[in-house]
Amino acid sequence: MPLISELPVYRPAIAAEWIDYNGHLRDAYYGLIFSYAIDDLMDRLGIDEAYRKSTGNTLYSLEMHVFFLREVKQSDEIHVVSSLVGADKKRLHLATALHCNRFPEAAATAEFMLLHVNQGETVKSAPFPPDVRARVDALAALSASLPPVGAASRKIELR
Amino acid sequence: MPLISELPVYRPAIAAEWIDYNGHLRDAYYGLIFSYAIDDLMDRLGIDEAYRKSTGNTLYSLEMHVFFLREVKQSDEIHVVSSLVGADKKRLHLATALHCNRFPEAAATAEFMLLHVNQGETVKSAPFPPDVRARVDALAALSASLPPVGAASRKIELR
Repeated sequence: MPLISELPVYRPAIAAEWIDYNGHLRDAYYGLIFSYAIDDLMDRLGIDEAYRKSTGNTLYSLEMHVFFLREVKQSDEIHVVSSLVGADKKRLHLATALHCNRFPEAAATAEFMLLHVNQGETVKSAPFPPDVRARVDALAALSASLPPVGAASRKIELR
Repeated sequence: MPLISELPVYRPAIAAEWIDYNGHLRDAYYGLIFSYAIDDLMDRLGIDEAYRKSTGNTLYSLEMHVFFLREVKQSDEIHVVSSLVGADKKRLHLATALHCNRFPEAAATAEFMLLHVNQGETVKSAPFPPDVRARVDALAALSASLPPVGAASRKIELR
């Protein structure tokens, strides 16, 4: 598996049942699309199904902060770009942006904190193995060389 | 419709398809459960289907920050408690906690910023009508008299 040389892009189709009574993508389904984009990113980093089965290791989400910026309709073509704000030996601070063909700017952005764990008798955090870490570091370096994909998370407050 | 006299509680069943390859509720489906809890809260505040149809007004999510604290399994009994951190003439700053029968503490918490809008030719923010505002204010006052239902949102960062 090669190192990552461009920001991962994930292109889902929008399911009809993801549209709510407001006539657009329900808030939670932006989250589901980001979640599937993370699955795709995991495959690219080598945290794929074969790795998960052979090691018992996987990623858990600790935090997620989504900004809903535009209404997305079922007919829209969308894609999600992923980048790494940072990483350490067992965590990924991920920034993602959902783009829609109708808008020049992102239709939603989200940040995630993800933890690499071993699902044994008890679930414990675990360092990335060297080959995964090399891919993580390559994506972090690439991400740092490019503009941020979205706004940073923040404390939610009435202003 | 009476004013709200206790924090709204929403009790969903967990669908089998919400469980992912890690053997627990996929991160995004915590978000879907919170989203359904908000629909339930909207009904209680009078922002229900009849109101939406007659006025063209509804709530849009602007931001969502979720803390994933415990793994939730399909067999778990769960409920979501909602409270208001604050509100103004057209926004709700909502705090929610997902509780599970297996844990004394919340299994996840989430904050949302929600905006009351009119879906006309263009979507525009709109003040709550007086009867909705009275229910909002009652829930905000009740929430302020009780302990917070979850941790406040924050900037996501590696520490």
